[in-house]
Amino acid sequence: MTTVNARSTAGPGEPFKAATIDRRDVGPTDVLIDIAYCGVCHTDVSRARGEFGTTTYPLVPGHEIAGIVSLAGPEVTRFSVGDRVGVGCLVDSCRKCDYCRAGLEPYCRTGHVRTYNDTGRDGQPTLGGYSEKIVVDEAYVVRIPNSIPLHTAAPLLCAGITMYSPLRHWKAGPDTRVAIVGFGGLGHVGVPIAAALGTPPTVLDLTPDKRDDALRRGARDYRVTTDPATFTDLAGTFDLIVSTAPANLDYEAFLELLTLDGTFVNLGVPKKPISVDVFSLLYNRRSMAGTLVGGIQETQEMLDFCAEHDIAAEVEVIRAGQIDVAFDRLAAGDVRYRFVIDVSTMAAG
Amino acid sequence: MTTVNARSTAGPGEPFKAATIDRRDVGPTDVLIDIAYCGVCHTDVSRARGEFGTTTYPLVPGHEIAGIVSLAGPEVTRFSVGDRVGVGCLVDSCRKCDYCRAGLEPYCRTGHVRTYNDTGRDGQPTLGGYSEKIVVDEAYVVRIPNSIPLHTAAPLLCAGITMYSPLRHWKAGPDTRVAIVGFGGLGHVGVPIAAALGTPPTVLDLTPDKRDDALRRGARDYRVTTDPATFTDLAGTFDLIVSTAPANLDYEAFLELLTLDGTFVNLGVPKKPISVDVFSLLYNRRSMAGTLVGGIQETQEMLDFCAEHDIAAEVEVIRAGQIDVAFDRLAAGDVRYRFVIDVSTMAAG
Repeated sequence: MTTVNARSTAGPGEPFKAATIDRRDVGPTDVLIDIAYCGVCHTDVSRARGEFGTTTYPLVPGHEIAGIVSLAGPEVTRFSVGDRVGVGCLVDSCRKCDYCRAGLEPYCRTGHVRTYNDTGRDGQPTLGGYSEKIVVDEAYVVRIPNSIPLHTAAPLLCAGITMYSPLRHWKAGPDTRVAIVGFGGLGHVGVPIAAALGTPPTVLDLTPDKRDDALRRGARDYRVTTDPATFTDLAGTFDLIVSTAPANLDYEAFLELLTLDGTFVNLGVPKKPISVDVFSLLYNRRSMAGTLVGGIQETQEMLDFCAEHDIAAEVEVIRAGQIDVAFDRLAAGDVRYRFVIDVSTMAAG
Repeated sequence: MTTVNARSTAGPGEPFKAATIDRRDVGPTDVLIDIAYCGVCHTDVSRARGEFGTTTYPLVPGHEIAGIVSLAGPEVTRFSVGDRVGVGCLVDSCRKCDYCRAGLEPYCRTGHVRTYNDTGRDGQPTLGGYSEKIVVDEAYVVRIPNSIPLHTAAPLLCAGITMYSPLRHWKAGPDTRVAIVGFGGLGHVGVPIAAALGTPPTVLDLTPDKRDDALRRGARDYRVTTDPATFTDLAGTFDLIVSTAPANLDYEAFLELLTLDGTFVNLGVPKKPISVDVFSLLYNRRSMAGTLVGGIQETQEMLDFCAEHDIAAEVEVIRAGQIDVAFDRLAAGDVRYRFVIDVSTMAAG
């Protein structure tokens, strides 16, 4: 067992405090990872604040983990000490069901084990990347290509794969028109990924503030959703709309933007149920869908794809003592475009 | 111009009365059809009662039309006098847009022309099959195979294609598990169609009353949706759920029945918006979709498929004077399984 510095919160609204947590001994197929950076995902904020109603405290969030292998169990075959690696939203699953065998571990029939706020196979609570080290079975670890700095790679482990997976699943490419709702932590990596897949997307955002950034990162167009002309001009345009919005939208208006057989995919988690007039689905044979992150193999594929196309996150590196401020700013949409914790500051404050 | 006997209603709740209507002269590409039977679709009831809020009166409903060609325009190439033919939910569309050219006329970019309660290209209100004759451009007419009697073929023109189209589009077949919600006018033709496609479906219905009929027509199982065990036993089972329900459902419960990448397709039009917790979509990457009827070519394909597999509707033939009673009984679910008007009674009452 290894004791490491971490940051934890004791309850909804409680500030993050320095703490020590125990990491399990490195088992035969485990790697010990010295975490260098951990991204701050919107889910961290929602979980820490108990917004999903299922948070167990004390909570150590963090599922955008980038670091270096510092120890490898005797049966580890894919990683060696010194390797640059990442861990995303899940650290285990049954490995036996058809979904796991197909590389779709997030959809594991018995439920995957989340990187934090879950219970590991050892019966212990899982604790995330707001900490100095983590022990993870190598089957749930991916390799970070050398060309991507660890601090800009970290957000790819959740934001990157959360965008990449639906774009691939719903076949974004040169023959499709794609829109991405929201240009934030997810959207800003989704835009260059879609562009690299051959379909520079249209960004639909609440404000005009990020237009230049979006166009610079590969958007073909940027439209403001408070302008009614956006919805008349773009009616029936898109094959795929990927929504990162964590708030409820006027779904009928967005569905009207879809062409025949178009799909609106929810990545964000709006607070209220999604309400849709059925005629918005009947006309143009539209679909309203949702998706979790991609599996481990697809996460590796995404990282390799990002390396090939020179894609990474744009980040604001913070110290561990700034987590509370970062949460408030993230909740207010005030970050370009992802906070990443410099884990070397974990002890210092 | 031809004056024919019909049945029309003057407003919501007004009884059907005998009336005469005018049919346009047979144009170069038109056929005049002597209607033998017209099915009574649930949409007829909703439209007649103004439930969609867009009904123009006087209304002559009817879009499940089966009859015999009695006159063909000089440029008609596909039909001759004496041919057994059908007309479904639409009688025109732009014919120029990409959707029309792809045989997806219901999704015509400028809107298709409905068989009734719409405005034809001549600027006149369209009037449906509760009448003795109709004039339709041959491009919107299909051939009824000789092996299917006209009275049991009529409901295929709407109910049949409304089931066939989504079953084909979402690839129902030997490798998929399909459920059909509701064993009524649509469901009772959807069941044998799905079975003939290689996937005998599970029927999910409010009551156990129709179990024997459903199994006789090819269902693999029949489960009652008021029994909570239905939802626990069948969790994660289906690739495709096709819902014919005209009422709002507990959508989360039904979505839980879908396996990975499963789709819930709405054919029915519930009265209130569809409300779905987003987690029901995120988990298992599910979709909530909708569809209109299929196009003309697919309708012909469906009829040929039904003939090949000996599929037709089970009907209760009524006289024109019984339309009001039939509407009340249909709204109450009291019909096995489709009312079909014997149009030869149109004048007599």
